[in-house]
Amino acid sequence: REPFALIAGPCQLESLPHARMLAERLLEACAPTGTKLIFKASYDKANRTSLSGKRGLGMETGLEILGRIREEFGCPVLTDVHDEGQCAPAAEVCDVLQIPAFLCRQTDLLLAAGETGRAINIKKGQFLAPWDMANVAAKVASTGNESILLCERGTSFGYNTLVSDFRALPIMAETGWPVVFDATHSVQQPGGQGGASGGQREFVAPLARAACAVGVSALFIETHEDPDNAPSDGPNMVPIDRMSTLIGELRALDDLTKASADNRG
Amino acid sequence: REPFALIAGPCQLESLPHARMLAERLLEACAPTGTKLIFKASYDKANRTSLSGKRGLGMETGLEILGRIREEFGCPVLTDVHDEGQCAPAAEVCDVLQIPAFLCRQTDLLLAAGETGRAINIKKGQFLAPWDMANVAAKVASTGNESILLCERGTSFGYNTLVSDFRALPIMAETGWPVVFDATHSVQQPGGQGGASGGQREFVAPLARAACAVGVSALFIETHEDPDNAPSDGPNMVPIDRMSTLIGELRALDDLTKASADNRG
Amino acid sequence: REPFALIAGPCQLESLPHARMLAERLLEACAPTGTKLIFKASYDKANRTSLSGKRGLGMETGLEILGRIREEFGCPVLTDVHDEGQCAPAAEVCDVLQIPAFLCRQTDLLLAAGETGRAINIKKGQFLAPWDMANVAAKVASTGNESILLCERGTSFGYNTLVSDFRALPIMAETGWPVVFDATHSVQQPGGQGGASGGQREFVAPLARAACAVGVSALFIETHEDPDNAPSDGPNMVPIDRMSTLIGELRALDDLTKASADNRG
Amino acid sequence: REPFALIAGPCQLESLPHARMLAERLLEACAPTGTKLIFKASYDKANRTSLSGKRGLGMETGLEILGRIREEFGCPVLTDVHDEGQCAPAAEVCDVLQIPAFLCRQTDLLLAAGETGRAINIKKGQFLAPWDMANVAAKVASTGNESILLCERGTSFGYNTLVSDFRALPIMAETGWPVVFDATHSVQQPGGQGGASGGQREFVAPLARAACAVGVSALFIETHEDPDNAPSDGPNMVPIDRMSTLIGELRALDDLTKASADNRG
Repeated sequence: REPFALIAGPCQLESLPHARMLAERLLEACAPTGTKLIFKASYDKANRTSLSGKRGLGMETGLEILGRIREEFGCPVLTDVHDEGQCAPAAEVCDVLQIPAFLCRQTDLLLAAGETGRAINIKKGQFLAPWDMANVAAKVASTGNESILLCERGTSFGYNTLVSDFRALPIMAETGWPVVFDATHSVQQPGGQGGASGGQREFVAPLARAACAVGVSALFIETHEDPDNAPSDGPNMVPIDRMSTLIGELRALDDLTKASADNRG
Repeated sequence: REPFALIAGPCQLESLPHARMLAERLLEACAPTGTKLIFKASYDKANRTSLSGKRGLGMETGLEILGRIREEFGCPVLTDVHDEGQCAPAAEVCDVLQIPAFLCRQTDLLLAAGETGRAINIKKGQFLAPWDMANVAAKVASTGNESILLCERGTSFGYNTLVSDFRALPIMAETGWPVVFDATHSVQQPGGQGGASGGQREFVAPLARAACAVGVSALFIETHEDPDNAPSDGPNMVPIDRMSTLIGELRALDDLTKASADNRG
Repeated sequence: REPFALIAGPCQLESLPHARMLAERLLEACAPTGTKLIFKASYDKANRTSLSGKRGLGMETGLEILGRIREEFGCPVLTDVHDEGQCAPAAEVCDVLQIPAFLCRQTDLLLAAGETGRAINIKKGQFLAPWDMANVAAKVASTGNESILLCERGTSFGYNTLVSDFRALPIMAETGWPVVFDATHSVQQPGGQGGASGGQREFVAPLARAACAVGVSALFIETHEDPDNAPSDGPNMVPIDRMSTLIGELRALDDLTKASADNRG
Repeated sequence: REPFALIAGPCQLESLPHARMLAERLLEACAPTGTKLIFKASYDKANRTSLSGKRGLGMETGLEILGRIREEFGCPVLTDVHDEGQCAPAAEVCDVLQIPAFLCRQTDLLLAAGETGRAINIKKGQFLAPWDMANVAAKVASTGNESILLCERGTSFGYNTLVSDFRALPIMAETGWPVVFDATHSVQQPGGQGGASGGQREFVAPLARAACAVGVSALFIETHEDPDNAPSDGPNMVPIDRMSTLIGELRALDDLTKASADNRG
């Protein structure tokens, strides 16, 4: 049982210097525990609550920045793809392609992503049960791609609210694919601010701790130097200056959980 | 207040003769009450539960069939689109383009659909609140398209289950756009059969009745001559030979509801 | 198929003159359609959101008032009971005893109520599925009492929100017991005002209409001459001066629905 | 920050020798970590799914057994009370009185329990939000009783299913009262077996681990030597022979969590 990998970065790319700064600070935060970082950022927010939400830098610029981060820092990078045509270009640059939750049932997208041969992180739809993800993963696996991650990011619970069902982690793990917990979007309040989604940043740490105690292969946490002024998902991003302590605490829980599991055999 | 329009047809296109037969029988079922029919069928099921589910005839063949139905029977036709590129070709043939529920937040798809100038029926995501649809409709309206329909089709309620919240109809109507109730997908049990969605056909009629009593501009009901052997959504399609009685009963409720509303002023 | 009975009255008893005034006005509102009224009022609100909520007049005074209403107006009366000891005294006065939703699984209360021989209206707990009510009714029926009503009043849906699942009406009807729809508590927002429950009065009429179109044996609607200043459940009570029109509209739907059902055989 | 207390025992009392055996084995399981045990057992299951479910030994016999356990083993004991009249007799024997979830809004029961001066463990209703518990606790606190525990035990999530929202633990902790996580009833499937509740024993350990990582004052876990043949809640009880390992693992997580919190200050 390996320690968790950390998928982290800003919700959306803002510029190369900004991505560089966050990558550098994340790597510093990961260094003391030797935590493996996968740098995450989006070049397009394709499903904003309202039309006035900022979309991002676009694919071309975005992939260029991600390529530079990968090269300069030597860390793997992840981005999300939104239609079949984006999969091949994104795969030229990125180590991991991510399927957005709303799109996790779109067969052609899953197949196109799978065919790139890159690792595919599939967010579980807010409208799906954990056991439904076996069929979703099978679509990707049908391409011969065996690098699949299944990611819990909250389930619809009444209106404008998500709940994290931690039974989902062991249930999805039964598929054999590594399981990720997205502590950022699990505390989202979809549409909760009228024209934008709200969020409850204060619950990122407790839910990430819970995930470590249950057992995960990776954690997904978005971060920003000034979340309240970030172009998207500000209410649920963790300030970058708290990441170091948070990673340390999570790694201690992760180590303990995996040692217990090893003892149980 | 106009009587409801009926959006009806098979879940997926099977062949021209099959579509013809259903269109003919639906028009017969609508005739006694003078109910306006919009013939509905999908050329591609892009988000099947599992990879083994039948996808359909494809866009080219499908649109050809829909064009023939439109021409032969003189009734408007509706189909669903799954990415920006499908909007223009579908709009050449169809009077109404439909945005699938899972895709109702994809900005580019909404804009491309809106730009065709065709009427756009937006299914409300299972993960959205009724008031969230105002922002969704505004994306389409930003293109200058003012032919928008908002369609309730069930909301996530625990796992593998949807619930129909009838408050959603008046709430969505406050946007000013006509409201549709999809009685077929509201009784779907997503993923409820493991590798396919289940459904509860026996509740289509009661829920459609409830919708008429609350007040709707259109009803959406899928139908088939042999639902249990249909390639998709069989468990929640109504047998075609029951449509005539059903439409008659629904129209009586619709007339009464709209007369009461007129009396209230 | 009989027309629906109307269970109506104030949430809580305030005084004999107040109860008299509401009974008189309700009977007037029922008269044009010949709708059967069961006058409803509580002598104790035993489970207020907070301690500062008004409890009511108490059992002794309350039953005395209900007895007077019954005698003066010749209409059956209903009240809710909260422990075994209240059942016998309440049954001396009331034609129907009601089991509150939170208490619908308390075996001893159900048995004590059943043993009075009075009709028992069991509110379905917000935490129960419609099919769970068969076991609940069986507890009452075990006493030999065969006058049982099952009442839908909303199901937990996220926090501080209820949803009305209209599938519950035919599902509960399969037990063979008459089914009631409580349009007042179905639009409650439990705890939604911090120290008190909120409510959405504007949805009482649409949901009651939906219930009539699906098919019910009785409707439950609380009313008050000045709901905004009522001691409890004000946000979801219907002003008494709107009851006459509402009852007329609901009866028209009810008649139509039952005629359709008769036609179907 | 003290280590968690463990509230544990069988769902229902079966006999003095049986209670003795479980108390003894639980104390042995707690000893290595010095975990404080509160022995829990019910003398009456007052709200079984169906009438045929076993109710238990009754108050008199039950309290006698609990008194013996308390005396023989010197550990505090807890039982649940179901109406006002049970509070005083139960308080003569028990250190902690527990308010069942369905009854957590019954004002008179809360007041009667509070007035005994004993510690009161209030189960959060499946139909309540975590912030609703402040008003519930205030009812008990109004009696001058300041020994209050708030217990999370799962929230309604669709039909026959509960979900554990771990945000509830810090939210309830903001009241200032200690928070308990009931890992046994959180994995209950209410009514899930038709005439009885089902359960998912395999999730007791992961959810209890999650609770420790988030932070709790006490854990509630029911146990039995042969859960599959226990008279109630068998599907979600942990076999007694697994408790020792489980407690050890949970204590390691608890120690780590509380040390981290101390570091944060």
